[in-house]
Amino acid sequence: MRIEAVDLFYLAMPEITDEGDSSQDALLVRVAAGGHVGFGECEAAPLPSIAAFVCPKSHGACHNVGDPVLGAMLDGPDDIARIARRITWESMDLLQAAHTWSGVEMALWDLLGRAQGAPAWSLLGIPRSGRRTPYASALFGPTPQETLVVGRAQRAEGFRAVKFGWGPIGRGSVADDVAQLHAAREGIGEDAILLVDAGQIFGEDVEAAAARLPALEAVHATWFEEPFAGHAYEAYAALARHCRGVRLAGGEASHNAHMARHLMAFGGVGFVQIDCGRIGGIGPARRVAELAAGRGVTYVNHTFTSSLALSASLQPFADAADGALCEYPVQLKPLARAFTANRILRDADGMLAAPDCPGLGIDIDWDAVRRYLVETEITVEGRVLYRTPKV
Amino acid sequence: MRIEAVDLFYLAMPEITDEGDSSQDALLVRVAAGGHVGFGECEAAPLPSIAAFVCPKSHGACHNVGDPVLGAMLDGPDDIARIARRITWESMDLLQAAHTWSGVEMALWDLLGRAQGAPAWSLLGIPRSGRRTPYASALFGPTPQETLVVGRAQRAEGFRAVKFGWGPIGRGSVADDVAQLHAAREGIGEDAILLVDAGQIFGEDVEAAAARLPALEAVHATWFEEPFAGHAYEAYAALARHCRGVRLAGGEASHNAHMARHLMAFGGVGFVQIDCGRIGGIGPARRVAELAAGRGVTYVNHTFTSSLALSASLQPFADAADGALCEYPVQLKPLARAFTANRILRDADGMLAAPDCPGLGIDIDWDAVRRYLVETEITVEGRVLYRTPKV
Repeated sequence: MRIEAVDLFYLAMPEITDEGDSSQDALLVRVAAGGHVGFGECEAAPLPSIAAFVCPKSHGACHNVGDPVLGAMLDGPDDIARIARRITWESMDLLQAAHTWSGVEMALWDLLGRAQGAPAWSLLGIPRSGRRTPYASALFGPTPQETLVVGRAQRAEGFRAVKFGWGPIGRGSVADDVAQLHAAREGIGEDAILLVDAGQIFGEDVEAAAARLPALEAVHATWFEEPFAGHAYEAYAALARHCRGVRLAGGEASHNAHMARHLMAFGGVGFVQIDCGRIGGIGPARRVAELAAGRGVTYVNHTFTSSLALSASLQPFADAADGALCEYPVQLKPLARAFTANRILRDADGMLAAPDCPGLGIDIDWDAVRRYLVETEITVEGRVLYRTPKV
Repeated sequence: MRIEAVDLFYLAMPEITDEGDSSQDALLVRVAAGGHVGFGECEAAPLPSIAAFVCPKSHGACHNVGDPVLGAMLDGPDDIARIARRITWESMDLLQAAHTWSGVEMALWDLLGRAQGAPAWSLLGIPRSGRRTPYASALFGPTPQETLVVGRAQRAEGFRAVKFGWGPIGRGSVADDVAQLHAAREGIGEDAILLVDAGQIFGEDVEAAAARLPALEAVHATWFEEPFAGHAYEAYAALARHCRGVRLAGGEASHNAHMARHLMAFGGVGFVQIDCGRIGGIGPARRVAELAAGRGVTYVNHTFTSSLALSASLQPFADAADGALCEYPVQLKPLARAFTANRILRDADGMLAAPDCPGLGIDIDWDAVRRYLVETEITVEGRVLYRTPKV
């Protein structure tokens, strides 16, 4: 098949807030080849990502993302890898390229799977998609009592694993955080998995982060996520040396497989969290999953938007042991729920799995796309390089 | 002073080729505050960089670059650092932000220097700008004989240091490369500094790169640049263990100070090459120069475009020892020569220094800007977010 068209749809909520909630807008990708279509989603700022798809060439190592995709052959996973290598080389100096390509790459796996009647995970060579234990992501409440209530509510929703993050953690005293951590544990009960996300609050301050470790160990937290800036490998490694039961987690910002490898090799994390909408898609995410397995590091998806992104993010570790953790966004904005025609839901046992359907198994609700579509146009020297496609 | 305006000018040659020559287009930045102006240049794809300056917010950690700059106070270097911190945090998920901000940051130093009648290097606390030994960057010829001729020509131009790169290196046999390296040495003579740039050709193949080391040692090459992909720290470290006289060089793609630190800490390079138009401007480049000094690593600029970018790139290591190496682009496209009204040239001794003038010391030729200007417009929901400014 020859790739005939790639369409980018910029969707947004009518109002975007300063919440750390990336489901407020979306860049949906549709690829067409050989009478089939495939869909993907960039976890990225839509306008610069569109610009990276259509921009005029700057030089031999600063090409746009569109040219190597449009017209390329797509008959198997090797073709996706080949286009990826070309983009790595020819878009070396275009920083935004990785985010743009991520959504396109997903769409190619989806299209290929639909054309061959096979789930994307089976195209990756995975014989069977395992069941994941979804964890609910919640924010710490402003007070320990409110955190406790949040924890109880997530358990009532049937979650056996809950992540608390951001909010007051690291902003007040150690005693304040100790109280929050104990409230979180009390809220979810002794038998649930407790995950803690510091949202990079400690920058590179190992001592401040280490002061929270005794409480994290006392409440049996499974992981301590992003205590530091994403690139602060040395701080991660220093803190990892203090950890007994709790392990460090990070990696969501990785925009190539190297970054994730470095966080494991130099940062000593026990969990590596990959967003397929940023790392360059499903292919490099799969390589990270394999690397992690070889190192005794646990691979987990990072997903904070639609079921399309969630399906893509579940593919690379579909062969993980049954019951392994996965992130499951529970507080999406209406946009991110609406634009997929079907959604990935927990089964009767509260477990989650990548769809056992061709491709990524997610269809698009075009009425919803139309409702949230952001009309956009980019012209250079009078030539329209991008205009929102007709839906 | 309050920052009143930031204007972005996209310039391009009428035809862009696939050469690895990034002087074929430019994104010029003009900042205005308190009756003064300042200029900077992004080493980046212009259209996605403009989009990253104006794009609508996606969420709390995915803001555009423009909002924290426009209207901000600018009375000293601390203000630049404050805006940089805000962008690091609020544009965390906007990959292209670092490239856009790099040019804006330079322009803020320029403006501040002009307003205070002080060179940017003196605002960095550097008492005196030293003289650099500029090296000429050339390509290996298709044959050793042609390489020899190129080397002689650069010596005839008065260069005491010459870098040969790309072309056939790593693409044929070890014997082919040995012949090229000896021709390069013969061309420039025994007394000149020889630098070799492999242009990432060996990927992560340490053995292939190591096979070239004996010849590099034999011809007394000072550095072996980018043998591997920029993120292949492990390969760098493995090769560094084989080096005797020659040292590894890299770092031009760093889009934050962390990446440069990692290449030193985990890659074992002896030279760290920083482009101020990518790393986030002069501030983070200065931090890398200080880190490098503390580690016994030699800081060198990476510059392949105008005198404006060259001036910015000379500031962070203006206090290096007299005679230290600097990159000096010698084969610029007409655009990159034309749009600055003055240029940084070698002195009578063939040496180079950052201008001893307020700010970056480079003025703009607005007639040339007009000649190369690329008319661009970005509209979102009928609102013009960007239109090429009137010159």
